Amino acid sequence: MKEMVVQFRDDRDWEQFHTPKDLAISLLLEASEVLEHFQWKNNDEQAAHIEAKREDIGDELADVLYWVLLLSNDLNIDISEAFERKLGKNNEKYPVEKAKGRNAKYTEL
Amino acid sequence: MKEMVVQFRDDRDWEQFHTPKDLAISLLLEASEVLEHFQWKNNDEQAAHIEAKREDIGDELADVLYWVLLLSNDLNIDISEAFERKLGKNNEKYPVEKAKGRNAKYTEL
Amino acid sequence: MKEMVVQFRDDRDWEQFHTPKDLAISLLLEASEVLEHFQWKNNDEQAAHIEAKREDIGDELADVLYWVLLLSNDLNIDISEAFERKLGKNNEKYPVEKAKGRNAKYTEL
Amino acid sequence: MKEMVVQFRDDRDWEQFHTPKDLAISLLLEASEVLEHFQWKNNDEQAAHIEAKREDIGDELADVLYWVLLLSNDLNIDISEAFERKLGKNNEKYPVEKAKGRNAKYTEL
Repeated sequence: MKEMVVQFRDDRDWEQFHTPKDLAISLLLEASEVLEHFQWKNNDEQAAHIEAKREDIGDELADVLYWVLLLSNDLNIDISEAFERKLGKNNEKYPVEKAKGRNAKYTEL
Repeated sequence: MKEMVVQFRDDRDWEQFHTPKDLAISLLLEASEVLEHFQWKNNDEQAAHIEAKREDIGDELADVLYWVLLLSNDLNIDISEAFERKLGKNNEKYPVEKAKGRNAKYTEL
Repeated sequence: MKEMVVQFRDDRDWEQFHTPKDLAISLLLEASEVLEHFQWKNNDEQAAHIEAKREDIGDELADVLYWVLLLSNDLNIDISEAFERKLGKNNEKYPVEKAKGRNAKYTEL
Repeated sequence: MKEMVVQFRDDRDWEQFHTPKDLAISLLLEASEVLEHFQWKNNDEQAAHIEAKREDIGDELADVLYWVLLLSNDLNIDISEAFERKLGKNNEKYPVEKAKGRNAKYTEL
């Protein structure tokens, strides 16, 4: 996937515009488009909206993923490795026996 | 990766708290933590910051990826498929011959 | 209020760091701190949280207001005038007779 | 101003849709629209964009202000008081003699 993203960018010669700050803004703006789908909706309305707009929401999630991959590439971060390392950290922050069934922050467990 | 994310959540019995709206808020908040790394920094300062904080930034990107995967799972979206479909759409919105070397929005190409 | 904000900034000689882009990032990050207060909470939990943390939430809203005022100043925007003008536009987008009791977007009224 | 905002909302009978969480999402989404104006632009391009789009940006800032005022009202927060109190706190976190001319976070002063 990362190769597809980098190829897409480099085909268009866009790297010249891509500072990390602007890439991170893109990531944020796409995440806000995901969030916009669920605004003003209670649980039932969210479920109905998902049925009606699954492809649109998938497009927005794909955009978020696009910027995650491009940022990882440009910052020389191995995202698969980072992902497994972070999940290991979360595992320590939220041990199953303490966190099970509770929605508290790890600082309050 | 998606299986790891769902396993992590289900081990903790957290699905009961997970409305799409709250998952999307999580996605947004993690994206804002990525962005925070680059605030107030010019290009040189961003580059120095990346060298100094690569693991921390990788953690934040991993968190964003975590919520993309969990949202995709809960919304019954195949994110790989969505990703390829969206890249195809972007390819049409930004054809190489028009978009090359330009940072204009597709509506202005 | 605007004078207090500008005074605070200029006392510290911070204008040199203040590009519009970075000010807008600050605005966004403070708005995300407001949002964080309400994440994972149902309506009752939100009400209880507000009682418990009213001062903290007020601090975050004040931070958002701070950046609205500083951005307005630096961009040479009269925010009171912009506010009244925008409310007039919203009045036309959402006429009372059409919008009353409905949570639809103006494009769907 | 707060009265105008509340009047606008109550004329439309919209309070029934207004949970604090959704109001905070609105605040966030409007802040992201402000930020979008400055994305992909260097300092000169930002200045030119401000000249060209001052009214549009003013509209977005007015929207952010709208949600700050409505949230303050619904949460029973006196925003003027909160603003002065928070500026006092910032004054202690960033004393002029230490912070002058430096863009460090208060924890690093």
